[in-house]
Amino acid sequence: MKSEQVRVGILGVSGYTGAELVRLVAGHPRLELAWVSAKQSAGARLGEVLPSARGIAGLAELVIEPFEPSDAGAVAARAEVVFTALPHAASARAGAALFAAGTRVVDLSADFRLRDAAAYEAWYGPHPAKELLASAVYGQPELHREELAGARLIAAPGCYPTSAILALAPLLMRQLVEASPLIIDAKSGVSGAGKTPTAASHLPEVAEGMRAYKVAGTHRHIPEIEQELSRAAGHDLRVVFTPHLAPMTRGILATAYAQARPGVSAEQCRAAARELFAGGLVSVLDEGQEPDTLHVRGSARAHLAYSLDERTGTIVARSAIDNLARGASAQAIQALNVSLGFDDALGLPEVGLFP
Amino acid sequence: MKSEQVRVGILGVSGYTGAELVRLVAGHPRLELAWVSAKQSAGARLGEVLPSARGIAGLAELVIEPFEPSDAGAVAARAEVVFTALPHAASARAGAALFAAGTRVVDLSADFRLRDAAAYEAWYGPHPAKELLASAVYGQPELHREELAGARLIAAPGCYPTSAILALAPLLMRQLVEASPLIIDAKSGVSGAGKTPTAASHLPEVAEGMRAYKVAGTHRHIPEIEQELSRAAGHDLRVVFTPHLAPMTRGILATAYAQARPGVSAEQCRAAARELFAGGLVSVLDEGQEPDTLHVRGSARAHLAYSLDERTGTIVARSAIDNLARGASAQAIQALNVSLGFDDALGLPEVGLFP
Amino acid sequence: MKSEQVRVGILGVSGYTGAELVRLVAGHPRLELAWVSAKQSAGARLGEVLPSARGIAGLAELVIEPFEPSDAGAVAARAEVVFTALPHAASARAGAALFAAGTRVVDLSADFRLRDAAAYEAWYGPHPAKELLASAVYGQPELHREELAGARLIAAPGCYPTSAILALAPLLMRQLVEASPLIIDAKSGVSGAGKTPTAASHLPEVAEGMRAYKVAGTHRHIPEIEQELSRAAGHDLRVVFTPHLAPMTRGILATAYAQARPGVSAEQCRAAARELFAGGLVSVLDEGQEPDTLHVRGSARAHLAYSLDERTGTIVARSAIDNLARGASAQAIQALNVSLGFDDALGLPEVGLFP
Amino acid sequence: MKSEQVRVGILGVSGYTGAELVRLVAGHPRLELAWVSAKQSAGARLGEVLPSARGIAGLAELVIEPFEPSDAGAVAARAEVVFTALPHAASARAGAALFAAGTRVVDLSADFRLRDAAAYEAWYGPHPAKELLASAVYGQPELHREELAGARLIAAPGCYPTSAILALAPLLMRQLVEASPLIIDAKSGVSGAGKTPTAASHLPEVAEGMRAYKVAGTHRHIPEIEQELSRAAGHDLRVVFTPHLAPMTRGILATAYAQARPGVSAEQCRAAARELFAGGLVSVLDEGQEPDTLHVRGSARAHLAYSLDERTGTIVARSAIDNLARGASAQAIQALNVSLGFDDALGLPEVGLFP
Repeated sequence: MKSEQVRVGILGVSGYTGAELVRLVAGHPRLELAWVSAKQSAGARLGEVLPSARGIAGLAELVIEPFEPSDAGAVAARAEVVFTALPHAASARAGAALFAAGTRVVDLSADFRLRDAAAYEAWYGPHPAKELLASAVYGQPELHREELAGARLIAAPGCYPTSAILALAPLLMRQLVEASPLIIDAKSGVSGAGKTPTAASHLPEVAEGMRAYKVAGTHRHIPEIEQELSRAAGHDLRVVFTPHLAPMTRGILATAYAQARPGVSAEQCRAAARELFAGGLVSVLDEGQEPDTLHVRGSARAHLAYSLDERTGTIVARSAIDNLARGASAQAIQALNVSLGFDDALGLPEVGLFP
Repeated sequence: MKSEQVRVGILGVSGYTGAELVRLVAGHPRLELAWVSAKQSAGARLGEVLPSARGIAGLAELVIEPFEPSDAGAVAARAEVVFTALPHAASARAGAALFAAGTRVVDLSADFRLRDAAAYEAWYGPHPAKELLASAVYGQPELHREELAGARLIAAPGCYPTSAILALAPLLMRQLVEASPLIIDAKSGVSGAGKTPTAASHLPEVAEGMRAYKVAGTHRHIPEIEQELSRAAGHDLRVVFTPHLAPMTRGILATAYAQARPGVSAEQCRAAARELFAGGLVSVLDEGQEPDTLHVRGSARAHLAYSLDERTGTIVARSAIDNLARGASAQAIQALNVSLGFDDALGLPEVGLFP
Repeated sequence: MKSEQVRVGILGVSGYTGAELVRLVAGHPRLELAWVSAKQSAGARLGEVLPSARGIAGLAELVIEPFEPSDAGAVAARAEVVFTALPHAASARAGAALFAAGTRVVDLSADFRLRDAAAYEAWYGPHPAKELLASAVYGQPELHREELAGARLIAAPGCYPTSAILALAPLLMRQLVEASPLIIDAKSGVSGAGKTPTAASHLPEVAEGMRAYKVAGTHRHIPEIEQELSRAAGHDLRVVFTPHLAPMTRGILATAYAQARPGVSAEQCRAAARELFAGGLVSVLDEGQEPDTLHVRGSARAHLAYSLDERTGTIVARSAIDNLARGASAQAIQALNVSLGFDDALGLPEVGLFP
Repeated sequence: MKSEQVRVGILGVSGYTGAELVRLVAGHPRLELAWVSAKQSAGARLGEVLPSARGIAGLAELVIEPFEPSDAGAVAARAEVVFTALPHAASARAGAALFAAGTRVVDLSADFRLRDAAAYEAWYGPHPAKELLASAVYGQPELHREELAGARLIAAPGCYPTSAILALAPLLMRQLVEASPLIIDAKSGVSGAGKTPTAASHLPEVAEGMRAYKVAGTHRHIPEIEQELSRAAGHDLRVVFTPHLAPMTRGILATAYAQARPGVSAEQCRAAARELFAGGLVSVLDEGQEPDTLHVRGSARAHLAYSLDERTGTIVARSAIDNLARGASAQAIQALNVSLGFDDALGLPEVGLFP
């Protein structure tokens, strides 16, 4: 029934996380797309901007509207939930206005992820709404389930942090590995860099290419990874994080290396992850099965695997997610589901697009 | 409610159309996966064979069962509908047994697509159940809607035929083009060749490669295309059909060339297609928009476009589908939906995975 | 010996045909790279702009110089041959100045390909040096060998025209097919669109995508194709030409359709092509072998195949080239080789990069 | 002059390293292809088996011959050098026979790489010619130049070891990093697994997929990496090595992590590599430049870069090679060049195929 539907809006619908939200909301039985907005495409129909929506009744003809923070009240009357998916700082400004107007906000930028305003400002610059940081809940349901119940300001986690945190948090919480050194070698598809064409996304210079970027402690996702893994470990820690660009559209594979505590087995790692993530959207694979970005394409699920290199006493953890789904929009809806009292998986695709 | 669910089975679940059926049935509100079968994987769990199902409650642990035609009665007790997705001839044998046992059968092989048994035998060899050809309905809902209502033996169309027929049928039905020559130049992703690794699917010999195959009237989909386009034209016709392998996983783009009847415009072609396909799952694009396999990836929709080359009087029609979705499993469910009295689109993804 | 070397310059070295010229000149025993120029990169070292040149003695440290037509005399003192690879019109202005200064010019733009200035202006706009059109030789050695001997102004053919002309010229010259309709359905890698990032080259919107563009008589390569095929046929003709973008970096596969004259066989087509192209860089494949862009990647060779669709009397010709090599820079050097009296293949890679 | 040419043979010409040898020998001014052999393709012409050789005079028509060790004498009369590129054990048997017959042998299998027969047998099984291990030279010219002069039995290094050793040897030789832990996270294109189609190379299951394999100390290249890095460090050491499959054909990117000795800078690492590799085929990139497999595609060169993560004191080294060129066939020819007294780079492509 219509009366049971939750009306949602998407701010920043022309970007890739916005497009993915459209796909996921369209398949969700309790969400109804009521409002879409994007700065540069304002005035266009959704079907003009998002080719996968062409010809679909109720979607293709939606008009993309402009938005200023002063419109927040009017938007709140039309949408009970708004996903904000704008560049950082702009997203916080919009989110703050919508939150103040009574809308439930799920923010997909980095703006509400760090609890420490100083850390935010060191990596991103001035924060336009730092007073809200204490109200925001980090939207990884497997690790913040209780805080998410009823939450009205949710920070959807970053893509790389999602892959790294899911892989390592169980090991740190159960003290199965040493907290230093932690090395995270992550490989991402190109869609993670967004919709703007650049040399780094130009097919002739990306296909058949594999390379690192922002090496040696310079990527902005580091403080977010360290915040959550420090929380898991119970003390501050630091990570070595190297992002790579792989010649594909979607997906992140993170390979993480940590020193095993004496006597720890791979099976103990799997057991810890299974216990911690029960009820969530994480598949801890059996020995012999390997996480692969293709296996989770389009899915809300993460795949995890653990091995022990006995020659060196190293735990090698692997984690595969779809950066736009589990690493962004699907996890945002999963967090919204939990905040609304729904099942984590409600309306979300769990079986990915394979092949 | 459980009592409202239609229990379905999938025979040939280990292949790609089987895998796609699992994905689509899992997202369908009225279908429930009750039985899965595959010859070589019998005894395994679904999650072992289909990596995208790993860790998903209710799917991963399903046991893949063996099947012999003599099992049809037992299967009929567990599943009201069975999708048969076996190699040709084997599919007909299984389908015939299940049909006789009272199951509704949706066959994804070529076995029930041709109404003319002689044509079948010329291209495929002996038909094991030719007496059923008259009972089978060609499952393209936009063109066979009335026959599909209540149908109990449905032949899901082939992937290339779907792309070609949707593009050209409106032009032939409305007599907008000459029926000869009709040239169909189709480009397919590699998944169309199935799950068995061969040199023609070996990534190092396919990536960065574009080539034709089975040229000059030798591809088995030709009689199916000609059957449906002859029906549309009201008389027998022949086509030139060239399939190509493109370096991608999913999708077919068909580019078709036909001589325009005097005075015919591209807009008349678009109008004919819009009228014919109203209520179905076809998006006829506006001038300036271009069908692209990426825009329909994972979607049940087809995208069509038409242009007139005024220098030569040629209509150039383009059609994009996902070969595994609209070209196979999603169209099979669309046809089942129509046969069960549901909306075409019920439970089917219309917004594709973009990007 | 140094005294035997021909000193060459490349104007427009920062683009893809410029990069390919660097690769090919570096491997040529009689050419020596003496001067490189590019507008936006002027002042940089070649290794900064062309990553494949990094660390290579004699290349990486070459300074990219600016160029104005008034510099032509100074350049002529340093380079006996200059490849001009600039946008159209700019290329003609530079080429005219260098030609006047006594340099041998091989132009890779469209500026000197059309003999008919009116046709040029209809498709490209005003021509800055139309008085030179009569002096220019169309640089396809297999078809213009005699004119190329000693030529000092060479128009390197376009990529699509190369693929189409090689496939169809033998059939038209030997009157094996009707001249109308001629349908050319061509599939190109993304590098054909050049180095500037756009949505049409953005990996997330291109990988897994196949689409037509500039359909129905609107692509600028049409007059060039028609000029050369009309010459082959001995009378004016028109073609239907549809370019497509395939999800790969390099390569063009052209599939061409023509009506066979009565009694003509595929073997006659092969024989005609083998005879016409003897001594050149064209491989006419045996029956059962199929041209594939991957088989000619990085190579100066074209692969051709012919089949007869007996059901409809249609000759289906296929042609595969590397758009940057045979379709641009390698063919430019092949033409230069012929103009200098060398063998066609001197210094050119014939064995492509497979896999 | 013919008399100056070195006649070479290729045993195992139907595989990918064999195909790459054909390409490279064809472009080498002092090598002449005199004999080709392959077990399963014996009797066929090279152009039938290697599509990139089709139509090329002197190559396409070469007959692929069978080979048994008893043929070694006859082969030695026809070829002064034979590249053996067979599966392990078979390669040693053939190489031993050819070596005994007086042929110079460059072996591309793993058979002559390990100096310790026990290590070989632990990872590969019985060695059929262990008495020759002491005669074999490890064919990485930058690190074994003196031993290679005049060498008649050369073990071409493995692809992963090449990428790892080039990155880390300079750091260990100059004692810039601690020898433990050493973590090597390597990403390879699919061609590394060879020509036989398997599920792990099937495009629909590889494109858009990124995954690890043979994790946690189980890959056979580990003893080779440890042998050479132990030699560089001056004492035995162990590495953590994780190979990954990336959705591309060629290339390996290795990202290696080591603890910096106090006070060590990235610039010191670059300087050490530049000094050690002077005269070889290694480009040590400047700060801000990043190794990318696409930048070395088809090239004999390796690209290296070094950074210091100051937050954790970790050196992050990156190394990019083409697995079939620098990681196999081109390095084999480079080693042969050195053994014959030629320049390292003679006849080898240094400028890769970019884009």
